[in-house]
Amino acid sequence: MSVDAPENPFLDTLITRQRAEPCTVVIFGATGDLTHRKLIPALYNLAASSELPPQSKVIGFARRDKSDEDFRTELEAANRKHSRQGHDDALWGSFAQGIHYHRSEFTDTEGYRGLAKLLDDFDTQRGSPANRLFYLATAPEYFHVVLEQLAAVGLNIAPEGKWARVVCEKPFGKDLKSAQKLNTTVSQVFAERDTYRIDHYLGKETAQNLMVLRFANEIFEPLWNSRYIDNVQITCAENLGMEGGRGAYYDTAGALRDMVQNHLFQLLSLVAMEPPTDLSADSVRDEKVKVIRSLRPLATIEEVAQNVIRAQYTAGFVDGQSRVGYRKEDRVNPQSLTESYVALRLRIDTWRWQGVPFYMRVGKQLPRKATEISIHFKTPPQNLFRTLEVNEGGNVLVIRIQPDEGISLRMLSKQPGVLLRMQPVKMDFHYRTSFGKSSPEAYERLLLDAMAGDATLFARNDEVESAWRYIDAIEHAWHDDPKIAPPMHEYPAGSWGPRAADEMLGVDGRVWRRI
Amino acid sequence: MSVDAPENPFLDTLITRQRAEPCTVVIFGATGDLTHRKLIPALYNLAASSELPPQSKVIGFARRDKSDEDFRTELEAANRKHSRQGHDDALWGSFAQGIHYHRSEFTDTEGYRGLAKLLDDFDTQRGSPANRLFYLATAPEYFHVVLEQLAAVGLNIAPEGKWARVVCEKPFGKDLKSAQKLNTTVSQVFAERDTYRIDHYLGKETAQNLMVLRFANEIFEPLWNSRYIDNVQITCAENLGMEGGRGAYYDTAGALRDMVQNHLFQLLSLVAMEPPTDLSADSVRDEKVKVIRSLRPLATIEEVAQNVIRAQYTAGFVDGQSRVGYRKEDRVNPQSLTESYVALRLRIDTWRWQGVPFYMRVGKQLPRKATEISIHFKTPPQNLFRTLEVNEGGNVLVIRIQPDEGISLRMLSKQPGVLLRMQPVKMDFHYRTSFGKSSPEAYERLLLDAMAGDATLFARNDEVESAWRYIDAIEHAWHDDPKIAPPMHEYPAGSWGPRAADEMLGVDGRVWRRI
Repeated sequence: MSVDAPENPFLDTLITRQRAEPCTVVIFGATGDLTHRKLIPALYNLAASSELPPQSKVIGFARRDKSDEDFRTELEAANRKHSRQGHDDALWGSFAQGIHYHRSEFTDTEGYRGLAKLLDDFDTQRGSPANRLFYLATAPEYFHVVLEQLAAVGLNIAPEGKWARVVCEKPFGKDLKSAQKLNTTVSQVFAERDTYRIDHYLGKETAQNLMVLRFANEIFEPLWNSRYIDNVQITCAENLGMEGGRGAYYDTAGALRDMVQNHLFQLLSLVAMEPPTDLSADSVRDEKVKVIRSLRPLATIEEVAQNVIRAQYTAGFVDGQSRVGYRKEDRVNPQSLTESYVALRLRIDTWRWQGVPFYMRVGKQLPRKATEISIHFKTPPQNLFRTLEVNEGGNVLVIRIQPDEGISLRMLSKQPGVLLRMQPVKMDFHYRTSFGKSSPEAYERLLLDAMAGDATLFARNDEVESAWRYIDAIEHAWHDDPKIAPPMHEYPAGSWGPRAADEMLGVDGRVWRRI
Repeated sequence: MSVDAPENPFLDTLITRQRAEPCTVVIFGATGDLTHRKLIPALYNLAASSELPPQSKVIGFARRDKSDEDFRTELEAANRKHSRQGHDDALWGSFAQGIHYHRSEFTDTEGYRGLAKLLDDFDTQRGSPANRLFYLATAPEYFHVVLEQLAAVGLNIAPEGKWARVVCEKPFGKDLKSAQKLNTTVSQVFAERDTYRIDHYLGKETAQNLMVLRFANEIFEPLWNSRYIDNVQITCAENLGMEGGRGAYYDTAGALRDMVQNHLFQLLSLVAMEPPTDLSADSVRDEKVKVIRSLRPLATIEEVAQNVIRAQYTAGFVDGQSRVGYRKEDRVNPQSLTESYVALRLRIDTWRWQGVPFYMRVGKQLPRKATEISIHFKTPPQNLFRTLEVNEGGNVLVIRIQPDEGISLRMLSKQPGVLLRMQPVKMDFHYRTSFGKSSPEAYERLLLDAMAGDATLFARNDEVESAWRYIDAIEHAWHDDPKIAPPMHEYPAGSWGPRAADEMLGVDGRVWRRI
């Protein structure tokens, strides 16, 4: 139960989370990109920060043939490249001692029996059984079989007094039906409280800080409603396209399924939810899912056309480099109808948000990488100062998720000088400069939470299904009958998206925030 | 009517003030400290910024014998030392051409006839009559006679189509009776709309910005009341004592009359007032005076003792330098009962402020020079995060008047890291770094306002008298009967004031903000 955290009792009162418990992490799909770039560096950095519970072990489970030593050597190279806090040979040496490799097909029950025996052997060596964290980092089509096989050999049942949990990587389904099917399989193998659906956006500092910002400060919540807020914008811009072969997966998904259903809806839930009764995982998720359930449905193709804009990038320039159009990208169908950009106008039918549109946009090949939430306040009811336009002059609270995580508040101030001239100025807070240290990677936080049994930052089955229900209506409008489907717009790579997205806000008398 | 301001029509829409008009400024007491250190540098800097209306002239009126040239030479030396934007010989040369000296006793009617003739001569040379701004920078005992003599020779009557205005330096009276008497004299000579009572605190950028902050931004006014604000603190700390012979005047006044009656009550009015119906001088001052009239009276000596702490400094160290006690200072009575520090707990009996104490403190020989207003918000109604104490954890909006004018907002944020730990952080806005130029001196703004006929930042007769009425009750409790007067406390130079001031907040469960 112990962990190398400081034992200062004053600090303890500020910690509202269970401690992480030692466990063996079994990674399915251990030779893949995620393991190399994220999972191992996250575990190594937890060890470097003395956050990883002692006696933790890692078992890589995959199809290729290799020895423990081969596996460790591969991961060492990856860690050198991707570790947030650098690579220390001595620390890696002791950390790597706990890493093992187990070769098996995902469909081969014998392989899972071998895994069970390996785990038992470790328990025998240690003299006590260990907790088990099964991490599904395979391609999504293997989730079902891995879960079924784990159940077949009884690995879903924890040793006496210990726990067995499963972490599911994204994507969790590709539509409502597949998500429901996957939830059914998971629920037959693990209890919901032992199921951790990853959304790495929730592991980012600023996303976590949203609840602190809203509910630990007196000043925001009174303003956080339709009386004072004019609109809310959520932007997730990427300045890359289909590099590194990612077109293969992306072209089967698109921006709506790849980003909106999970990440953007999670951010939306955090920004729009009612205060939870407490900070337990289910209290928080109860409130989050209520937001998604309160989204006003898009009942017709016309409503989809009015409230959702899809687009593909054409050739252009990003950061001075020329980029090809989406349909010319490697491993993308030249007739692809997959969107690389989507903008939405959402309505949340609750007392708090009546009349406040939530605008979202996400896209590839935009001018820069930036994820942020901006709260646009109304203008004062009395215009004492003959002043700037609504869009120029209102207060804006910006919560930057990445890069340069932080918060800024735009307000009007008097310009220095003998005349009364006003100018928007920013009050600013930067995580990095304020705290003088880098934030942990999202996966560090999330792995530790899973080890501690805290599912607050993981998606619950009903959250996932509610989100897919909303997304499905849009996908159906787009793809069921091409003859009456809303148009696929275009935007040049390096622009901020299609004109249609600007027009969607324009008819409301609003503009996208300039980022 | 013209002034060298930019003619950009877009900017014009942001300017809510009349233009300054050319005039002749007559300074009574022109050989004194204020003229050298503040008035002439302010006028010179207005000229340097092309803000001073063309053809403006300055006449110094004082008792000593000197030529125009002598006077200009003296002022040149002073301007080199005190000018905000440096001293340019060519600019000074042309500016100084407009400076003249007129020798006279303040009581000598002939001297005022001479002044009238000089003004007429200028008008003849110019070919048209000029506006006239009479600036009372003498010792306060001469205010009456100067006003009476101006009336005696008819200089209070403006030439046809022009104006004649009077600016009164502080102190405006030393109690209610003397202020009423002075108001009576002024009102017999100048209309209230032509009377400008200086409070240079109102000329500071941040004080002016208070109205912009509160009423041009949507986010503050909804929070600006007893539902969300726990208490308000106004601090004016000085790290000097009675240097340069200032004990002579100070020992006759004390902190309450020297600072609270005027500067601190003005800041209090700006922070606590209701939104004015418009930005006209009288609309704003109507609201300001309501605040002072709403102050809950201190009806008994006991109430004064409970709500007002007075103190004198004893020997100590400020900035590592030893300082003598107040009663040992040059030109201070060794048995002085004048306070060098005062702290007050004020109640404003309005709907908005019911239950919100306003704490004020002002003192000499404190650890540093700092004037600020801090708004201390309540803690959230639901304590989701088991968190810091009220005084440690609440939101605080700090409006810094000097030095480093600016605004900061203290809020709770999550510490970066895998645990949920909170820490107060600051969102910050600095005038100097944000705008990249220094703010004009208070006197620049105020002189220009007087030339423009904008009295918003000047005290009105009823404001001054209401403030004195409140102050008088305290002075009477302190001085009428020494046997039952509240005690004079002590604090070492270099400390933040007497323990009694801490205890006054302590019984309310609060602490002074650490500055």
